[in-house]
Amino acid sequence: MNEIQSKKNALIKETKKLSQKKYRQQSGQYLIDGWHLVQEAIRANAAIQAIFVTSRGYEESKDSLQTVDAVLYLITEEIADYLSELPTPQGIFAIVAKENQLPGQLKGNWLILDNVQDPGNVGTMIRTADAAGFTGVFLGTGTADLYSSKVLRSMQGSNFHLPIVEGAIPEFIEVLRVQDVKIYGTELNKDALAYTNINTYPAAFILGNEGQGVQKDLLAVTDQNVYIPIYGEAESLNVAIAAGILMYHAAGLDH
Amino acid sequence: MNEIQSKKNALIKETKKLSQKKYRQQSGQYLIDGWHLVQEAIRANAAIQAIFVTSRGYEESKDSLQTVDAVLYLITEEIADYLSELPTPQGIFAIVAKENQLPGQLKGNWLILDNVQDPGNVGTMIRTADAAGFTGVFLGTGTADLYSSKVLRSMQGSNFHLPIVEGAIPEFIEVLRVQDVKIYGTELNKDALAYTNINTYPAAFILGNEGQGVQKDLLAVTDQNVYIPIYGEAESLNVAIAAGILMYHAAGLDH
Repeated sequence: MNEIQSKKNALIKETKKLSQKKYRQQSGQYLIDGWHLVQEAIRANAAIQAIFVTSRGYEESKDSLQTVDAVLYLITEEIADYLSELPTPQGIFAIVAKENQLPGQLKGNWLILDNVQDPGNVGTMIRTADAAGFTGVFLGTGTADLYSSKVLRSMQGSNFHLPIVEGAIPEFIEVLRVQDVKIYGTELNKDALAYTNINTYPAAFILGNEGQGVQKDLLAVTDQNVYIPIYGEAESLNVAIAAGILMYHAAGLDH
Repeated sequence: MNEIQSKKNALIKETKKLSQKKYRQQSGQYLIDGWHLVQEAIRANAAIQAIFVTSRGYEESKDSLQTVDAVLYLITEEIADYLSELPTPQGIFAIVAKENQLPGQLKGNWLILDNVQDPGNVGTMIRTADAAGFTGVFLGTGTADLYSSKVLRSMQGSNFHLPIVEGAIPEFIEVLRVQDVKIYGTELNKDALAYTNINTYPAAFILGNEGQGVQKDLLAVTDQNVYIPIYGEAESLNVAIAAGILMYHAAGLDH
């Protein structure tokens, strides 16, 4: 195992840069932090390019690490603190190559995110799509970056379970239409259809920005727009909660 | 209007202390931050004890503030920065007296939180209970403090819309039983009943700690324990998402 003793090591400096979106885009790589995510990446046969462990982290994970075909680096606790955004770093990290390809099989339920800004919301929604057995998640331009540490943390490894594709939503809608997936926009407007009336499978749901909702241009090209009734006095639902309610309604139709 | 020019003013120092749970408990008061929450407090006739505004904040809110029976203090932008936990303070704050009484009418759907730790989860769950038309929310001992700034922010004023009561869950279960409310625990165990089989109204759902779930002692005294099926590869759902799915299922039975 290679040893790195200093934060000033060139590879550590490059790795630290992966906390910035710009460098993730340039390199096509991202950094995962913590044992659970590294384990999920190994289990999913993700394209792991390097693993960094402290001696403490290595003790806990050596059995699993022996199966991985990636360069292993032993790092100090100080370097782990430097790389981690967690309050208590677990002493294990991996550099993973991004994958962003449309899967061969598109038919099934999809979640589409239009300008969702909060990384915690994006991550939780992807985790819920995974739980609900969705085929995939599509991130429209403007949505929080999939590979930021906050999104990665709240996804809890779901990016290794289902395809997550980034691109322009209008084009993706056309692709889904060919597969007979019905496209539902979401809005607060009670003139839309209550979601409980949806009874077609497969379905794609477009969820929008926390403040503005789904863009009007997109709502105009859906098959149907739906809303979730508000029975009390709240003005709206959190977007990740709304997505959870819709996705489990759709999952219920399919099972 | 009284003017306060310095962060060292005794009332400002007392007010700042309300960011700590200890002082909120001692004084029976909490601080709300931002125009939306103050507006909700006014609309709900909450027990507002003082309002602090910058001259900028006053310009935007003076019509509403004239209707409020509370002492008004003009503060500087510097004091607003000092009191606020928001990245961009809106220049309006209010001290509100806590209310924690059981409502006269208990019958209806309830959400019960057992040791839920994350303030964002607690706030979002209360907001969703409000949206789903629930009768109230019960916070068991150990759940994140209702009056912390993060919970207040994610509740978005729902604490002014429905009763939120703190106390011991086992005693509250007995109180609900007298009202014929059926008590559902939640677990990950597939030996429990799938939530889609619930068809009784009214219902109370106990949601548990992010890591440990609902305490075993509590699961032993419910009428029925339920789970939400995981159709994909995720290990579990976020607790606030799970609560949203269950509450909207129950709300659907009632409407």
